[in-house]
Amino acid sequence: MPCASICPDPPIAQHMKDIQSLRDDRRINIKKVGVKDISYPITVLDRANKVQKTVARVNMYVNLPHQFKGTHMSRFIEILNHFHGDINLRGFQLILQETKDKLQAEAAHMEIEFPYFFKKKSPATGKMELSEYLCKMHGSLEEDDDLSLEIAVPIAPPLPVQTGSGLPESLGHWGTANICLRFRHFIWMEELIELAEGVTSHDLQWSASSPKPPDYPLSVEKIAKNLGEKLASHPSIRWFSVTVENLSQGFSTFATIEWPDNDNPSPTYCVH
Amino acid sequence: MPCASICPDPPIAQHMKDIQSLRDDRRINIKKVGVKDISYPITVLDRANKVQKTVARVNMYVNLPHQFKGTHMSRFIEILNHFHGDINLRGFQLILQETKDKLQAEAAHMEIEFPYFFKKKSPATGKMELSEYLCKMHGSLEEDDDLSLEIAVPIAPPLPVQTGSGLPESLGHWGTANICLRFRHFIWMEELIELAEGVTSHDLQWSASSPKPPDYPLSVEKIAKNLGEKLASHPSIRWFSVTVENLSQGFSTFATIEWPDNDNPSPTYCVH
Amino acid sequence: MPCASICPDPPIAQHMKDIQSLRDDRRINIKKVGVKDISYPITVLDRANKVQKTVARVNMYVNLPHQFKGTHMSRFIEILNHFHGDINLRGFQLILQETKDKLQAEAAHMEIEFPYFFKKKSPATGKMELSEYLCKMHGSLEEDDDLSLEIAVPIAPPLPVQTGSGLPESLGHWGTANICLRFRHFIWMEELIELAEGVTSHDLQWSASSPKPPDYPLSVEKIAKNLGEKLASHPSIRWFSVTVENLSQGFSTFATIEWPDNDNPSPTYCVH
Amino acid sequence: MPCASICPDPPIAQHMKDIQSLRDDRRINIKKVGVKDISYPITVLDRANKVQKTVARVNMYVNLPHQFKGTHMSRFIEILNHFHGDINLRGFQLILQETKDKLQAEAAHMEIEFPYFFKKKSPATGKMELSEYLCKMHGSLEEDDDLSLEIAVPIAPPLPVQTGSGLPESLGHWGTANICLRFRHFIWMEELIELAEGVTSHDLQWSASSPKPPDYPLSVEKIAKNLGEKLASHPSIRWFSVTVENLSQGFSTFATIEWPDNDNPSPTYCVH
Repeated sequence: MPCASICPDPPIAQHMKDIQSLRDDRRINIKKVGVKDISYPITVLDRANKVQKTVARVNMYVNLPHQFKGTHMSRFIEILNHFHGDINLRGFQLILQETKDKLQAEAAHMEIEFPYFFKKKSPATGKMELSEYLCKMHGSLEEDDDLSLEIAVPIAPPLPVQTGSGLPESLGHWGTANICLRFRHFIWMEELIELAEGVTSHDLQWSASSPKPPDYPLSVEKIAKNLGEKLASHPSIRWFSVTVENLSQGFSTFATIEWPDNDNPSPTYCVH
Repeated sequence: MPCASICPDPPIAQHMKDIQSLRDDRRINIKKVGVKDISYPITVLDRANKVQKTVARVNMYVNLPHQFKGTHMSRFIEILNHFHGDINLRGFQLILQETKDKLQAEAAHMEIEFPYFFKKKSPATGKMELSEYLCKMHGSLEEDDDLSLEIAVPIAPPLPVQTGSGLPESLGHWGTANICLRFRHFIWMEELIELAEGVTSHDLQWSASSPKPPDYPLSVEKIAKNLGEKLASHPSIRWFSVTVENLSQGFSTFATIEWPDNDNPSPTYCVH
Repeated sequence: MPCASICPDPPIAQHMKDIQSLRDDRRINIKKVGVKDISYPITVLDRANKVQKTVARVNMYVNLPHQFKGTHMSRFIEILNHFHGDINLRGFQLILQETKDKLQAEAAHMEIEFPYFFKKKSPATGKMELSEYLCKMHGSLEEDDDLSLEIAVPIAPPLPVQTGSGLPESLGHWGTANICLRFRHFIWMEELIELAEGVTSHDLQWSASSPKPPDYPLSVEKIAKNLGEKLASHPSIRWFSVTVENLSQGFSTFATIEWPDNDNPSPTYCVH
Repeated sequence: MPCASICPDPPIAQHMKDIQSLRDDRRINIKKVGVKDISYPITVLDRANKVQKTVARVNMYVNLPHQFKGTHMSRFIEILNHFHGDINLRGFQLILQETKDKLQAEAAHMEIEFPYFFKKKSPATGKMELSEYLCKMHGSLEEDDDLSLEIAVPIAPPLPVQTGSGLPESLGHWGTANICLRFRHFIWMEELIELAEGVTSHDLQWSASSPKPPDYPLSVEKIAKNLGEKLASHPSIRWFSVTVENLSQGFSTFATIEWPDNDNPSPTYCVH
């Protein structure tokens, strides 16, 4: 088509077009096709209750061989329906395999984003409360498979105040740690949350029972590094990227660390 | 601290910790630091009116040398204030240079996202109307500099109906083409919009004056390829990625193409 | 304090301040207090599967007597936890009653917003597909109780084309009907969806089996009125407001109708 | 059509339908029609720079007489284009008048929402900084006209710490005061912002120069009342509603006050 205006002579134009097609088939190929922003009820694993039902945004897409001529987009939805939203680790891999097979793809990808609810004791009230954590999973299957998990953990640093002074005992929702991980072994979401919140407590908390002074002034760099050291020492974690954001100023300041893995020198699938 | 659970003996633990620190200083480094989601009034170039004032979301961040110990986040805002939001191409580069210098960084990055308004004749009413296009620019400065522009152009395919039949003459906002570009030479935003909308007209329009039948059934792959061929033949465009989305079904189906450039084999800075 | 700048003489200022306080205590009262934007897993009734688990955004608030001095905000969350997110019609009323009692309030309110999933035959493919509908419920309990339900139903008008022509058979997601209702009797969400989608089919569909020409050109006013006539004739519906939006132009045009109920002349609790 | 299921006999059904039509024409009327979510560049008044260019979301709609048969939606856009986005107080009224006239409406309404930028000295750094405030204006013109303004002012309470302790001197973005107003006389946006931020300083600040202890523990009710007293004593303010939200807990707790005006006993146009 771009040829039309410069090639008035039909036979040559036709000839040019053929060459153009060949060149274009070689050069301007579809890189990926898929579906995005599908709202879907899913079931994920839950340490305390075995399973948890929640609602996800789902993206599914594939890389196709160069000669491929078109994709039946409805197949993505059919595959999703086939698995009824059972998105445990095993289910994730099966969905990717079925997507790769049915769409004759070179690689298949799925990204899901969902709120995960975890009941734990509130540090403020001592009562069991339901907390929400935004999670993302990204899986891909080419020759090898790859799976990463991202979870956003709020940072609410305690303040060194005496009980009963009326002063706030916490800075409130000061910021967020976005933790993106690849695994060696299975790890519960709840364990990750406890690990992350435990680190921020260790570094930041000042209380009668823990006389260690809080590590003020806070900085996104310092919290990111502290969290990184803890994650790097966990035997189940193979790779991570951590972005700590300070949201307390009306805009965000942030610091990102990434911990390389020799087996996987340039991981690029962190869900973001 | 990560050492605690595995090293019961204090002296060795201390020794280990020292080594750990060294290793961690080498390994768990801050990869990038910066500010995000700053709302800021900016001035951009406008073909018809020379300049256009709009409001942007701004992200600025840097990569720091390994030995770097902390960043003054307020400097990002100071630099932004220094330039008063003058975000033409020249201004973009100057901001990056000042950021790199003042923060002693290895690389500086800036991303901005803003609505751009373009007054043009409405195909429906024939009157001059103001249309909004969402734009993103991403610049980075390391040894070389790099700049990419992304623009979202709506796709509203015409329908082959007779005037006066009462039937709709267009499918309405069927989808969007997200076009991300790198340039050889300067190109007006307006020219890109006209190019993109002209391609979709060429391929899709059916009217008395253009007897070419529309290229139905529509597919995101076909529209992406047609747009790609047109962009590839433009002398000012050095690299592009195009994602065509069909939004008419309640969720999105999409196809992405990318046109490689031998001088720049693996561009990864497309704003997304 | 507001008195300071206008009353230089301390004794009078003090006197004024006392009067001011009295007047202010009488006049500047807390009108409502509560919690907003709580993400919470809930269980709602489902015609096919008895119950459906989904995730809601919850707002809860109360109107307090004038002399009231402060509210324990944590009680809202405690009440929500007490009911474990069981949000059927009976549960809704019980939560409101407990809120009103525990907070010694004059009136209690709860608003929830959640995606509801309904499996039905796709008109395009003939297969069973899961469709998502955004729902809102608003309940209040003062002397009497009041409950309204809002549901957003997509409008995807069919086009009068011959099968096999390659032309699109539907305008796609042309717009949305936001239907807000009060009831005389229980009615399934699924019945409402079928009623709404049936009306738009009746008015708009053109097919071999229904030779009635579609009611083109479409207008938000006409679709709103057609939907209103159908809702007004349903024995279980006591009051409604319908807003039909056309989203196909890049912005929204809309028309709103409201069907009054003599028993309830000025309902203002439509969730919006 | 709604008649179908209850009127089996065609002639009577037809007769019924005629009556139904009459009844429906009387009962199921279009309540309002208009346009929503139009992104538009606007110019507003600015105390320091005379005018400020920003970008608004605009809604415009009308109430029509009962016998009205249809609306030319494009007229809303034409009127907006006619005024080139000059949205000062005078312009607001002129747009409403033209909308009411051109659409032969009983009442005309316009709502705009836009970021407003105000350069002021940062309490943290002492430097001039650009702060963003989200504003909304709602005007209506029936027999009388009505105009309300809403502005969201962040609440960042100071903490009683000694300079140099390294501890944070502020709780950061603890919450927001949403202030909705009707006026007697013109008042600058900047004055409102200073008034609101001054009140929160007066109540909350603890510093060497102001030995008054901060009014901890903070509560949304207390801050709302303090702000209400200040607004009620301002001679230019005729009516207000204030909602103070605490956003520091991951969800919002809020308190709302409303200050009645005897001249305008039931104002309902607060933009929300």
